[in-house]
Amino acid sequence: MMMTTTMRKKSASFLFRYSRIFHSDQPLSLNHNNSLLRSGTSLCMPISRYIGSFRGCRKAFQASAINHFRMPCGFQFRRFTSLSSVVQRNPSFSRLNSDDIDFFRSILGEKNVVQDEDRLLDANTDWLRKYRGTSKLLLQPRSTEEVSQILKYCNSRDLPVVPQGGNTGLVGGSVPVFDEVIINLGLMNDVISFDKVSGILVCEAGGILENLSSFLDSQGFIMPLDLGAKGSCQIGGNVSTNAGGLRLVRYGSLHGSVLGLEVVLADGSVLDMLGTLRKDNTGYDLKHLFIGSEGTLGIITKISILTPPKLPATNVAFLGCKDYSSCQKLLVDAKRKLGEILSAFEFLDNMSMDLVLNHLEGIRNPLPPTMHNFYVLIETTGTDESYDKEKLEAFLLSSMEGGLISDGVLAQDINQISSFWHIREGIPEALMKAGAVYKYDLSLPVEKMYDLVEAMRTRLGNSAKVIGYGHLGDGNLHLNISTPQYDDAVFAQIEPFVYEWTSNHRGSISAEHGLGLMKANKIFYTKSSETVQIMASIKKLLDPRGILNPYKVLPHSLAS
Amino acid sequence: MMMTTTMRKKSASFLFRYSRIFHSDQPLSLNHNNSLLRSGTSLCMPISRYIGSFRGCRKAFQASAINHFRMPCGFQFRRFTSLSSVVQRNPSFSRLNSDDIDFFRSILGEKNVVQDEDRLLDANTDWLRKYRGTSKLLLQPRSTEEVSQILKYCNSRDLPVVPQGGNTGLVGGSVPVFDEVIINLGLMNDVISFDKVSGILVCEAGGILENLSSFLDSQGFIMPLDLGAKGSCQIGGNVSTNAGGLRLVRYGSLHGSVLGLEVVLADGSVLDMLGTLRKDNTGYDLKHLFIGSEGTLGIITKISILTPPKLPATNVAFLGCKDYSSCQKLLVDAKRKLGEILSAFEFLDNMSMDLVLNHLEGIRNPLPPTMHNFYVLIETTGTDESYDKEKLEAFLLSSMEGGLISDGVLAQDINQISSFWHIREGIPEALMKAGAVYKYDLSLPVEKMYDLVEAMRTRLGNSAKVIGYGHLGDGNLHLNISTPQYDDAVFAQIEPFVYEWTSNHRGSISAEHGLGLMKANKIFYTKSSETVQIMASIKKLLDPRGILNPYKVLPHSLAS
Repeated sequence: MMMTTTMRKKSASFLFRYSRIFHSDQPLSLNHNNSLLRSGTSLCMPISRYIGSFRGCRKAFQASAINHFRMPCGFQFRRFTSLSSVVQRNPSFSRLNSDDIDFFRSILGEKNVVQDEDRLLDANTDWLRKYRGTSKLLLQPRSTEEVSQILKYCNSRDLPVVPQGGNTGLVGGSVPVFDEVIINLGLMNDVISFDKVSGILVCEAGGILENLSSFLDSQGFIMPLDLGAKGSCQIGGNVSTNAGGLRLVRYGSLHGSVLGLEVVLADGSVLDMLGTLRKDNTGYDLKHLFIGSEGTLGIITKISILTPPKLPATNVAFLGCKDYSSCQKLLVDAKRKLGEILSAFEFLDNMSMDLVLNHLEGIRNPLPPTMHNFYVLIETTGTDESYDKEKLEAFLLSSMEGGLISDGVLAQDINQISSFWHIREGIPEALMKAGAVYKYDLSLPVEKMYDLVEAMRTRLGNSAKVIGYGHLGDGNLHLNISTPQYDDAVFAQIEPFVYEWTSNHRGSISAEHGLGLMKANKIFYTKSSETVQIMASIKKLLDPRGILNPYKVLPHSLAS
Repeated sequence: MMMTTTMRKKSASFLFRYSRIFHSDQPLSLNHNNSLLRSGTSLCMPISRYIGSFRGCRKAFQASAINHFRMPCGFQFRRFTSLSSVVQRNPSFSRLNSDDIDFFRSILGEKNVVQDEDRLLDANTDWLRKYRGTSKLLLQPRSTEEVSQILKYCNSRDLPVVPQGGNTGLVGGSVPVFDEVIINLGLMNDVISFDKVSGILVCEAGGILENLSSFLDSQGFIMPLDLGAKGSCQIGGNVSTNAGGLRLVRYGSLHGSVLGLEVVLADGSVLDMLGTLRKDNTGYDLKHLFIGSEGTLGIITKISILTPPKLPATNVAFLGCKDYSSCQKLLVDAKRKLGEILSAFEFLDNMSMDLVLNHLEGIRNPLPPTMHNFYVLIETTGTDESYDKEKLEAFLLSSMEGGLISDGVLAQDINQISSFWHIREGIPEALMKAGAVYKYDLSLPVEKMYDLVEAMRTRLGNSAKVIGYGHLGDGNLHLNISTPQYDDAVFAQIEPFVYEWTSNHRGSISAEHGLGLMKANKIFYTKSSETVQIMASIKKLLDPRGILNPYKVLPHSLAS
């Protein structure tokens, strides 16, 4: 729908339009499952928390030998099969015995050496219910010293381990492939220090992102990253996977904001790189090796991170665009005209919107009744509410006049801001409710990004819904293929095509999710063989017995 | 001097105050030497350019065996002696012979195999004239392939090399210690591509920073870093040393903005990590090993870097403060109240100001006649000139009312902005003109930063002037000790005290200058022995024969 004449003329119509749709006495509420993902509250949360409500489904899953089936709770489960036939358990690894359990109990105490079946099932299974290991042991250390003792012992015994944070990863990196010992950092969740002059936070790795955000909020600061899983994910996992998320366009990647790390190496030695300085050019900056290496080089136990001051004014606009080219031009204009106050630039296509409206309760399209081909969410953050809003309105009006925006609304309060964000953040959950989903997290040059969605639609025809959304401001596409059920014929149409296409367009096959188990063998689509060879040499140098998160990140041909 | 009543009342008095001091018909001009440092113009500049005018001094220097002496041109020269007696030439290295020269000529052609004495003297001597090697050969490759062929050959012959950019480093990292072959990247200065949608620049490593800035300016973008030596320094050297500079407080470090690198390893193999994506989580992010490793792990040949849009509005205020505590409080307030538009927060003490006024022509204190104890330069950059100025003025007035600022002026045009910056950027040159100087580049917690200056004053008494200035916004102190001539007794008072003090306060002995030769053996003051041991292992892995920039960065006990 093209904008009305009045909307062309003055920005106040934005306000009017929005207030017609959402009234403050009609608070939006997301459904139960979404709130599970978003609202972690305790610093010491059992890792099964967000997954707990699916326990019934999980038990059925555990008992079943069927590959793909629909669960009674409405989520489709899939047994990971294709890779398990390829990956072989490393024969040099030992098997856990009762002496090992006794040793761990002597270090950690009875309570933190977990052998309970239900808890192990949760810890063995990833969030997407796509990967499931068969570990018989979950360890919960309370200190760096305990992590060190665990690793020293495991290394000497050739016992493989998988470090686990909130277990919200999407590539099977945080769960065992076979019987690896699970080391969950959740009990190490202290804030160690916070310097209000510099904004530097030092904390343990097991702190839940949302809890750290709440702590910082009380100090007048924010975390430099934010993501949908913040209620469950741990900062150690965020750093280990170099999580991107919603604030990257403004505050950059964790390689820029993480100032220091404490890491326990495979042999139990503790690497103290926990600097609290903005600048430190003394030798090779080794901490970057551990940012994004998904726990394969060491276990991150403490983090020092630069946090930005919390700025008081946030504005969010939700816009309809007629085509992808308009979204792209809008991005270029926004970077220049909103400049220093731009804090997010997200997009979704009409199939994403359709999916959210059909599968999540309490979500409405703020731009009814006509569907637009694309939607863009723009957020600004600054020091001056009225000035920022004025600036954003001026930008939106000029973009409307230039034909880049077909329609749009500007949030008037925190509830409306939240409801706009829920549309964008609700897509992953809607996808899971819709049936089977094949998820790809890709980086591509912005101008090529949507071509892949269209190429995939052409390729798959009516056999699947192809959905495109993501962080347009960072060139990060979340490509999702939704089918009623998992189907090997569809899968064969998707892979390796999706990786080849991305590689041919100089993209990355993992923008922010990492490689984990899912893409370990796909690394050559993005990285040269010389580079991967050096990665393997560094892995060998730091973890010669290969006990740390085996079968992940590096191609199996190179992982001893 | 406390501000006048009128200044308390309205911000217009800022304008008035400033216009009284600088009239537009009285353009400030910096002296010849400074302009040499600042105004590189050609993309293909001989490396001797900025050093050329000192040739007379250099020849005398070359001929002399005296350690410390004052040159007729007014700069004091110092022969580097204390370390040269400690560092021994690695006996496993070969000596250059005529077959080697023939081989290099066959690859590079006659012209780019330089044996001319004058040019070698320049390339052997660092900018501070503190370090001087005895290399007999300077190579000027024109392509990655040529760099690769050079290194493959040198590695097979055990010929050590020193990669050299603009040779503006301050820790002796860019010049030979003995007879290393100098590889200067200055001829590799092409812009390879620029994407105006994403702001991603891909260029060769030899591009001069100022030239790249000029290119980007024509495209409506800026480099994310800026430093005093921009007219000479090369982007490859900037990345190799992880240069910080004046924009770090706004745009972060090069670990955040460099997106990709092409690097030639010691054995001549080319590591293609030249991604042009904002996000790429596929395996270990190896490029970070080369950012800040000062050419000891590989030679950077190409760079992909994210550049911010050029924002149209820049405002600069120059302020007087009564004490360091006020400067610090002002910083905290500025981060919060200027928020997204703050782009620089620099400070200098009154001894720095005194030095600049006494030794540089055409510089005036914009806050006469009383000297303040401290001066702060605040820069804002944003999209809206009048709004930004209004915001800055409001901030300055409230800071005056709160007693944090004693006096201040706000620049009214680009000439005034430039003249304020010249005070801050002129300090290094003024120091060199004042006599001998002992330079330290330190990171410290902001609240401790100036304590070191005071501790050093107490320690040295009347034997030296102790000057403190730097990037307050980044916790980066430039501590300089100025004496009429180099004096071993003074030096013994400074070191190791300065390193011990910094280490005891959890600081870094090199914030942005690197370790080079000067601080290679000091690394343990900032880094743990386990960390340094892993650095040495990585060096051994990537450069097993140790030919790349030997004697630098790592302690000599661990090298080779």
